[in-house]
Amino acid sequence: MATLAIRGGRILRSDMTVTEADVLVDRETGDIVELGAELAGDEELDAHGDLVMPGLVNAHTHVAMTLLRGHADDKPLDAWLREDVWPVEAALEPADIEAGAALGILEMIKSGTTTFADMYFEIDRTAEVVERAGLRAVLGHGAIAAGKDDVAARADIEESVEMARRLDGAAAGRISTAVMPHSLTTVTPELLELAATEAHDAGVPVHYHANETVDEVDPIVEEHGQRPVEWARDLGLCTEADFFAHGVHLDDREIDLLARTGTGVVHCPASNMKLASGMAPVQQLLDAGVPVGLGTDGAASNNDLDLFDELRDAAMLGKLAAADASAVAAPDAVSMATAGGADVLGLNAGRIEAGAKADLAVIDLDAPHLTPEHDVVSHLAYAARGSDVRHTVCDGTVLMRDREVLTLDEGAVMERAAARAAGLLERAGV
Amino acid sequence: MATLAIRGGRILRSDMTVTEADVLVDRETGDIVELGAELAGDEELDAHGDLVMPGLVNAHTHVAMTLLRGHADDKPLDAWLREDVWPVEAALEPADIEAGAALGILEMIKSGTTTFADMYFEIDRTAEVVERAGLRAVLGHGAIAAGKDDVAARADIEESVEMARRLDGAAAGRISTAVMPHSLTTVTPELLELAATEAHDAGVPVHYHANETVDEVDPIVEEHGQRPVEWARDLGLCTEADFFAHGVHLDDREIDLLARTGTGVVHCPASNMKLASGMAPVQQLLDAGVPVGLGTDGAASNNDLDLFDELRDAAMLGKLAAADASAVAAPDAVSMATAGGADVLGLNAGRIEAGAKADLAVIDLDAPHLTPEHDVVSHLAYAARGSDVRHTVCDGTVLMRDREVLTLDEGAVMERAAARAAGLLERAGV
Ligand SMILES: [Zn+2]
Ligand SMILES: [Zn+2]
Repeated sequence: MATLAIRGGRILRSDMTVTEADVLVDRETGDIVELGAELAGDEELDAHGDLVMPGLVNAHTHVAMTLLRGHADDKPLDAWLREDVWPVEAALEPADIEAGAALGILEMIKSGTTTFADMYFEIDRTAEVVERAGLRAVLGHGAIAAGKDDVAARADIEESVEMARRLDGAAAGRISTAVMPHSLTTVTPELLELAATEAHDAGVPVHYHANETVDEVDPIVEEHGQRPVEWARDLGLCTEADFFAHGVHLDDREIDLLARTGTGVVHCPASNMKLASGMAPVQQLLDAGVPVGLGTDGAASNNDLDLFDELRDAAMLGKLAAADASAVAAPDAVSMATAGGADVLGLNAGRIEAGAKADLAVIDLDAPHLTPEHDVVSHLAYAARGSDVRHTVCDGTVLMRDREVLTLDEGAVMERAAARAAGLLERAGV
Repeated sequence: MATLAIRGGRILRSDMTVTEADVLVDRETGDIVELGAELAGDEELDAHGDLVMPGLVNAHTHVAMTLLRGHADDKPLDAWLREDVWPVEAALEPADIEAGAALGILEMIKSGTTTFADMYFEIDRTAEVVERAGLRAVLGHGAIAAGKDDVAARADIEESVEMARRLDGAAAGRISTAVMPHSLTTVTPELLELAATEAHDAGVPVHYHANETVDEVDPIVEEHGQRPVEWARDLGLCTEADFFAHGVHLDDREIDLLARTGTGVVHCPASNMKLASGMAPVQQLLDAGVPVGLGTDGAASNNDLDLFDELRDAAMLGKLAAADASAVAAPDAVSMATAGGADVLGLNAGRIEAGAKADLAVIDLDAPHLTPEHDVVSHLAYAARGSDVRHTVCDGTVLMRDREVLTLDEGAVMERAAARAAGLLERAGV
């Protein structure tokens, strides 16, 4: 057995306590083998003075959009989609997807994220980067009906199903998939139903956007006389495996339905603030037992992929939403960013324990903004940032050591992304 | 004239445009002398590939509270004050203030903040650290009447006046002062009036907390039949020099009054979220022409002093408060963090132009999360973080060069803060 040992650190356990231990990893299976004292490995990673935490899980993003970071901010959603996003997406070439995915994945490795769930186009190209870069990912082709005729809309859903079947298990099992109809309002009921049936038939989840804005909720209530989550359940989109992004506007019955079905919600606090969508009832979701993870959403509505921001935003905004300074406490926010996200995605990760995937982030605590050390869990929620990550490990492989990314050429990725972004905007004429 | 030249960078101007220029600084006066091409200095600072921006202004904090960072988070405000803050403050020794101030000031230098306004106790000790560390500061003794008899309460206000008179102009002019009655509800009307009269007589502003929570607004409306800002104006606390923290709950008449009097508001978005206080109407304040700066508030309600977080929070939360994705655009947020804060504090800083104070932060843009570079102002608002600051300059003196702080011993400051924090909690019995 080829092993990796992470030596001398303190371990953040899933009950949010901290214990001193070394971590022994089987590099072939990618699993954690043992926690204990004085564990030696063929390869070693120093963690003295550091906190070893589960790698962060970014459970909803559109990673290739990182190419648009900072392009056309501060616009109303409609104008932004119409004037900026759609023209650019129409001009996207596969090489743009590859360049944007590489940039976003580089940023995630540097900020301690080891898994991401991605809805976008040309996901073969994203899968290639995931394979090289060493992260874990849940990938899906985002299918949309709006603006398409029936034949094209159906073909898009079928492409999402076909990609989900084909890529599931790729990259030595690091890639899993989902069928991803874009949202409850941009895909027809027939095609949503088809997506659910085909996904579950293929043994993969359905992932979509739901209950993000009032403008998305009201038409469903008016047309179908049901709340969106009830409507989604009737279409087959709320099994235990399924998960959707946002859930900003949810009523008590919907929350109860999510808890009973085990459907996951990916909370995207930065996106919800930046697009003025509203405040998700996160403490209520947690109280009801709904599986909740965190997502950055696309870089264009965020604008970065540093999940420590979402962790902080979730804790901060959750208090404001509940009008209660004790809501969404630091341990809950850290859990959502790790085990919560892994549970939503159906992965055996997000926890540091024997048998779980060895997806880890090692945090350097020796910094003024993390001093004094009354409570490291509080620091993770309220004071740490992606630049405090010292090492990143995924599936038992070291992806970043002492802030040097080992699987991607940082300079080349940045240069290529800058060049592709410039060309893309030129082609799109925006 | 001894000079400092910042060479090869791009300059962020106060109209939020970016131009290539060197910056020449007179190290004796601490002023910017000239912007232009190929400016040589006795001392030089490399800024190739970097953005030279005004140093950030943290216009409201309680810096020594940094010792409590992460102690007792996620509690309702009342319980937190009663069980955690007050017992600790009762046990504070002057050496704690010095250690906490040094830690906070170190963190601010490392994240590009060059000026802070501080309300706390034992401000002589904070002033000593400011003198050594090289920052600019507006200091004031926070006077409170709640829990004191009339004689003690009056003595506290008199101490605030005396300190403001004595320290104004200290540290070669880098320290200015204000009289700082704690808030409109924790100091009696007579003493608020006395504070205002004495402050303006001494030629310094009054700084206080106002309109932070509904619980602070309602009693004033009930007892005096006036909104808090009207009440404050009648007590003499709303001159052009004066400024208060929070302003979360403000009505249209109060906003109009602030605009007409030129009274400054320090928006503290992280504190307002973490304590579930509410959302300040920032876009409305800006539209009305009210001077607005940004503040972290104390580390115990934040929990860090990285003003890039506030910049991002102000832009994000401002959109949610206005229910408009185009509200509090990136340039407005960056302005509040720089020129806006300087204006609120009455300082000739926050702008890179000849004659202004040479208070600067040099940002390293060569990072995945700041790529591609469609819009650097957007990056400052939505993607940059304190760790991207490469050099910090205040009053013409280099305080941090290539992330090495030159005026404080980083390791010693952290060690001393950790030791004092542990001793403090032990003495306080919490
Ligand atoms: Zn999305
Ligand atoms: Zn305060």
